[in-house]
Amino acid sequence: MTRAIQDYYPERFSHCFGCGRNNPHGHQLKSYWKGDETIARFTIAPMYSGGVPGNAYGGMVASLIDCHGTASAAAFACRARGHELGEGAEPVRFVTASLTIDYLRPTPVGKEVTITGRLISVEGRKVRVALALTAGDTVCARGEMLAVQFPE
Amino acid sequence: MTRAIQDYYPERFSHCFGCGRNNPHGHQLKSYWKGDETIARFTIAPMYSGGVPGNAYGGMVASLIDCHGTASAAAFACRARGHELGEGAEPVRFVTASLTIDYLRPTPVGKEVTITGRLISVEGRKVRVALALTAGDTVCARGEMLAVQFPE
Repeated sequence: MTRAIQDYYPERFSHCFGCGRNNPHGHQLKSYWKGDETIARFTIAPMYSGGVPGNAYGGMVASLIDCHGTASAAAFACRARGHELGEGAEPVRFVTASLTIDYLRPTPVGKEVTITGRLISVEGRKVRVALALTAGDTVCARGEMLAVQFPE
Repeated sequence: MTRAIQDYYPERFSHCFGCGRNNPHGHQLKSYWKGDETIARFTIAPMYSGGVPGNAYGGMVASLIDCHGTASAAAFACRARGHELGEGAEPVRFVTASLTIDYLRPTPVGKEVTITGRLISVEGRKVRVALALTAGDTVCARGEMLAVQFPE
């Protein structure tokens, strides 16, 4: 699959610094289906270090997990409603209501990391997603998000 | 008080993109005591927009709450041990173990926001902090952090 979930976002909802294709300054994170789960890959630039060089700062980890989480919520919600992204007329933009992140180990900069999303539940406009950020075989952070579909 | 909590961080722990004085690319957030609580003020640049222009992206909100939280933890821990920042020989750098953020309302860009920290508990090297981000009289986000003192 070559088209990212974020590429289905309506134009006016695509300015996010973390994942918006219309934000030239931002990270432009791209999330994809991988079986029943979702995945994104990203290499954090060294300037986004935490307290010590070589490891990412907490806000960067949160940003990747947050943007991948809302993208995952959109994809999971569409499929739960019986269609795929782009097939329905409904908008596919979710926002974060609540996000918990457990920082388990330092997240490296300058090395590709993977963010995955797994569906916990869909209830109407609310979607819960379990998230993980890994570097190689090491899980650096885990997250859980409650995302809510943006009102039209 | 003119010296920020982050200004007491040891040199080698001061590279954080969110609050490190040694990171010229970053936000350089500064946190201060305000009575028994802590406070930081910050104006988010417009490029850090969320899905729609005018509101900050989730990672930015998380970054401000996270960096203010670890700074608050350092200050609270020092005072709980009977001294002020800079008076003890111990290091004053905490890292985030877990962070929960409730996104209550959109956080504006281009307008000063305030981040406050309130001590929940200190137990050895673990500090719990309650956090809030407000714009004017509006609470935009609330956070709760478990921070752990960085091992020497």
